[in-house]
Amino acid sequence: MRTSIATVCLSGTLEEKMLACAKAGFDGIEIFEQDLLVSPMSPEEVRALAARLGLTLDLFQPFRDFEGVEPQLLQANLHRAEAKFKLMTRLGMDMMLLCSNVGTATINDDELFVSQIRQLADLAAGYGIRIAYEALAWGTYVNTYQHSWEIARQVDRENVGICLDSFHILSRGDDPEAIAQIPGEKIFFVQLADAPVLSMDILSWSRHYRVFPGQGGFKLDEFLGAIARSGYAGIISLEIFNDVFRQSNVERTAVDGLRSLNLLQSQTAALLDAQGIGSALALQALPGGQKANGFDFTEIRTEDPEPVARLLAQLGFEFRGQHRRKPVQLFSAGGARIIINSQRSRGVTAAVSGFGVQVPDPAAAGERAVQLLARPVPRQHLRNEADLPGFNAPDNTEVFFGATGDAGGWEAEFGVHESGAAAEHPALIQCIDHLNLAQPWQSFDESVLFYTSVLNLQALPGTEVPSPMGLVRSQVLATGDNAVRLALNIVPHGLEEAIDRNHEYPEHIAVRTGDIITLARNAVADGMDFLHIPANYYEDLAARFDLEPQLLQTLQELNLLYDRDEHGEFLHFYTETIGNMFFEVVERRDGYDGYGAPNAPIRLAAQFERNRWSRH
Amino acid sequence: MRTSIATVCLSGTLEEKMLACAKAGFDGIEIFEQDLLVSPMSPEEVRALAARLGLTLDLFQPFRDFEGVEPQLLQANLHRAEAKFKLMTRLGMDMMLLCSNVGTATINDDELFVSQIRQLADLAAGYGIRIAYEALAWGTYVNTYQHSWEIARQVDRENVGICLDSFHILSRGDDPEAIAQIPGEKIFFVQLADAPVLSMDILSWSRHYRVFPGQGGFKLDEFLGAIARSGYAGIISLEIFNDVFRQSNVERTAVDGLRSLNLLQSQTAALLDAQGIGSALALQALPGGQKANGFDFTEIRTEDPEPVARLLAQLGFEFRGQHRRKPVQLFSAGGARIIINSQRSRGVTAAVSGFGVQVPDPAAAGERAVQLLARPVPRQHLRNEADLPGFNAPDNTEVFFGATGDAGGWEAEFGVHESGAAAEHPALIQCIDHLNLAQPWQSFDESVLFYTSVLNLQALPGTEVPSPMGLVRSQVLATGDNAVRLALNIVPHGLEEAIDRNHEYPEHIAVRTGDIITLARNAVADGMDFLHIPANYYEDLAARFDLEPQLLQTLQELNLLYDRDEHGEFLHFYTETIGNMFFEVVERRDGYDGYGAPNAPIRLAAQFERNRWSRH
Repeated sequence: MRTSIATVCLSGTLEEKMLACAKAGFDGIEIFEQDLLVSPMSPEEVRALAARLGLTLDLFQPFRDFEGVEPQLLQANLHRAEAKFKLMTRLGMDMMLLCSNVGTATINDDELFVSQIRQLADLAAGYGIRIAYEALAWGTYVNTYQHSWEIARQVDRENVGICLDSFHILSRGDDPEAIAQIPGEKIFFVQLADAPVLSMDILSWSRHYRVFPGQGGFKLDEFLGAIARSGYAGIISLEIFNDVFRQSNVERTAVDGLRSLNLLQSQTAALLDAQGIGSALALQALPGGQKANGFDFTEIRTEDPEPVARLLAQLGFEFRGQHRRKPVQLFSAGGARIIINSQRSRGVTAAVSGFGVQVPDPAAAGERAVQLLARPVPRQHLRNEADLPGFNAPDNTEVFFGATGDAGGWEAEFGVHESGAAAEHPALIQCIDHLNLAQPWQSFDESVLFYTSVLNLQALPGTEVPSPMGLVRSQVLATGDNAVRLALNIVPHGLEEAIDRNHEYPEHIAVRTGDIITLARNAVADGMDFLHIPANYYEDLAARFDLEPQLLQTLQELNLLYDRDEHGEFLHFYTETIGNMFFEVVERRDGYDGYGAPNAPIRLAAQFERNRWSRH
Repeated sequence: MRTSIATVCLSGTLEEKMLACAKAGFDGIEIFEQDLLVSPMSPEEVRALAARLGLTLDLFQPFRDFEGVEPQLLQANLHRAEAKFKLMTRLGMDMMLLCSNVGTATINDDELFVSQIRQLADLAAGYGIRIAYEALAWGTYVNTYQHSWEIARQVDRENVGICLDSFHILSRGDDPEAIAQIPGEKIFFVQLADAPVLSMDILSWSRHYRVFPGQGGFKLDEFLGAIARSGYAGIISLEIFNDVFRQSNVERTAVDGLRSLNLLQSQTAALLDAQGIGSALALQALPGGQKANGFDFTEIRTEDPEPVARLLAQLGFEFRGQHRRKPVQLFSAGGARIIINSQRSRGVTAAVSGFGVQVPDPAAAGERAVQLLARPVPRQHLRNEADLPGFNAPDNTEVFFGATGDAGGWEAEFGVHESGAAAEHPALIQCIDHLNLAQPWQSFDESVLFYTSVLNLQALPGTEVPSPMGLVRSQVLATGDNAVRLALNIVPHGLEEAIDRNHEYPEHIAVRTGDIITLARNAVADGMDFLHIPANYYEDLAARFDLEPQLLQTLQELNLLYDRDEHGEFLHFYTETIGNMFFEVVERRDGYDGYGAPNAPIRLAAQFERNRWSRH
């Protein structure tokens, strides 16, 4: 599939945008006119730079407010168009996007639209230029693809076809199915955009909140399937207006965009295969996504391993061994394995730096990640050491693929020869329940797409948690069976400043137990520091739930939090923060599947309060 | 008027919120339950702290999802309520907010609502507690104030009345007029919130975008007028859910809130006076707002005055004198006066630090500012020096009031004894046209309220300008006759980083001329650095406007930008940036009244491009 992207999706100068698109691997770009206008590069320089970078210049856009006007304005519009045709000739471009009139149209008459666009087409033909007519969702008179196609059909010129933009069609709730009936050669261009499900006016939604395919709520595989069935064999491009992308690193946004197209073409190929339909789009399939069976390990980076090691021991973890060659220690409890890594960690007090998941075929999972443009972690193993495929997530977490049930491979490097159950007493901890990872606000959508596509996780509905310094946006990603769960948090700027002197929001590792009360008592006996929960919380628990007084007292005594849903009960506690991380211990009773969301504000306020005092 | 504010409006811990409310000058607060829940303070401590601070605890809120439920759930709800009544008793509070059910109501039956709320009332009566029933705009069955009043009326208990929240009424487009017919003593509480005009679902709008009165689009003077006419004599409170306020400095937000109430009560008093209606609310009027006649001066702070002085000379400004006592220089051209201040400016390359406006009665303007809680600038004058009332705006700009036509007062301190026209040649510059001031994102709404209330300016509709690093939000504030105009800009984080090494977005002073071409030619002859405008811009001008080729050539030669509207033409240029500021020169032909908005992206991109190279 030939891929393209509109320059308006990206930040920076036109030159920076072009370099980033080429580096990411796009085949071409759409020139958003304003990007050219503000550029010191001449059209000839842009053309030459594109040629050197191997980028095609696919679409000049947008040309606005042309048709449906009085004769005098039509002449001014044709004058304006001809100037742009001359400019396009200098750029070496042959296709212009014509948006349906949203401003100056005063006459609602299809025949007039047809005759005026025909005049434009004949003028364009003299320059060898084709016109792709697009119905904007808020066009004054033309705002559906059926209508734009009807007009283009009646214009009846070889150099006039339509442009289809998924946003303009799906935002209105229109059915894309009829696209399949349009002759593919009369579809001149296809632009894709996804969008979160928001109830707001379509114009604001479009101008600020578009996202790359897979980051929103539209069914773009079905949309692209309909395009494919029309016989369209051209370019698939991205046109995203997004307030955050406009401010983000241009190279990363370009990679994020191409990743979204690689995923989408694979999904669409699968859809068409299932229906037994071929496509002229040459859709490329990815190696199949694998369901992870669970966490393989979680890695903490720290200059000084002692405080973390002590905390792990208090929680019931056993030391399993020191890496034979590196300053790396392995701890485990039940199926939960935690690595403390002190390599290249000068100045790092403690931070969650990576994790592994277990999949049936790590090599295939790695190959899929590569095709999804994941950035490989630089290899640090010797020839006879385990070689787990590893990648940097957008939040800089390192993500590795290990083989299901094959821990022996890398555990042997820690001198561990028996798998599991080396402890004297059975561990109260069963496994890693979930990881909570902080996300920079600029890369939240990118992270969600990365984890859902590369780790094959599903995104659950997002929530917002009030804290003393703003709302924390939270998004859970999980395998269908919850064997692997990640909670991504975006933290308001003010909270970062308040909660940590490095302006970083702490991440945490949640481990699961079947007996949180015994585990907490053991930890108390070992002198562990719990995050202190205020007394008012327990009074409110008593008002909300019909709890045994004895249980309530135990909860308060041990700083345990409590939640209940229609399935069961949830008990959990938090440790004090070390550097930039802390632990949570959870017990899930009778199929409770949430994360204690009502308690999250309590935790944030307690950490804020704690930090406030340590700041004084 | 007795004022209150809900703790949910503010950032920080409950203690910090209470301290900030007392310091700002509120009479009382509403306790938002979650703020208490997450606090380590016991109810007794909260009560004692409030007493010490002189704050009344006016409303305990919210109590949710009570009425319209099955008998078993009713019992649980009564249990929950009684726990809260006991808590309120410990807090010494006697009024609870009951929100109409949005979640658990399953039976749509007014009689059932009445009988269940009556049970709640009778339980509350035992604790001396009153219930204020509020219709949420998205209540399942009860969502209008008429409906909540009808139910409260039928409940027919002395301790049950209603709470009226302007957001829930005005967001639905409901007419508040009928409030005047409700007996004032049955209105137990009034909450005010404004909101920008947005088309989105009401719940999201309410939870994220509420603002203080005067910062949005609701007609709150009419709303409060209807409240007053009901005979209500109680507390007027603020309940604002705003994503930005939650992250902002708690003391500033509290002041911002009380300022909004002081302005609103004055506006409402004027409205009622005009209608010849008295009010039990004891509304306090402010000294009347005065229309400024123009800018008195603009002040630039800089460690080294030479680069700015040179630029001013190139633009045609004359040096008028040095302050007799301080390192401060005065320049003027026509009616434009610019002060270069080198006091306390170590490390400041150049920044717009303040400005004065001329009003008929500066002392009264200063008194109004004080009553609007503006922070006075520390006085720096001696007894025999001019004493202009001065205040710090939220963006830290110093704002002064001078007397109309009375420049001699302070000019004399610069050894200037003749007013104006000291230059050999008539100045091409006529006056200061407008100032463009950068705003921190946290204080944009606060700034708009400050400048509109303290300087008595009107806010025009806002716009957004694309830049290479994100959208710049822009808001013009002006007197009705445009004698004083300010353009406030919020700059995306990424742009700040890109455009300036101090992460500050440059501000600018725009001066007006009647002959920009001669002025620009003079500046070229004097060797001035212009901001360079790319050639592509002039090609686009030729496509969009039917310009004389000679004029187009002159524009391009002089780096002038051009715009036209239905009134007339606009020509302008920008200087290079010095430190954190630059100048713009504008010529308005035939009543053009805008700011060349289509050219703003060109300017931003050119500055970005310029900076990019200076960074390399």
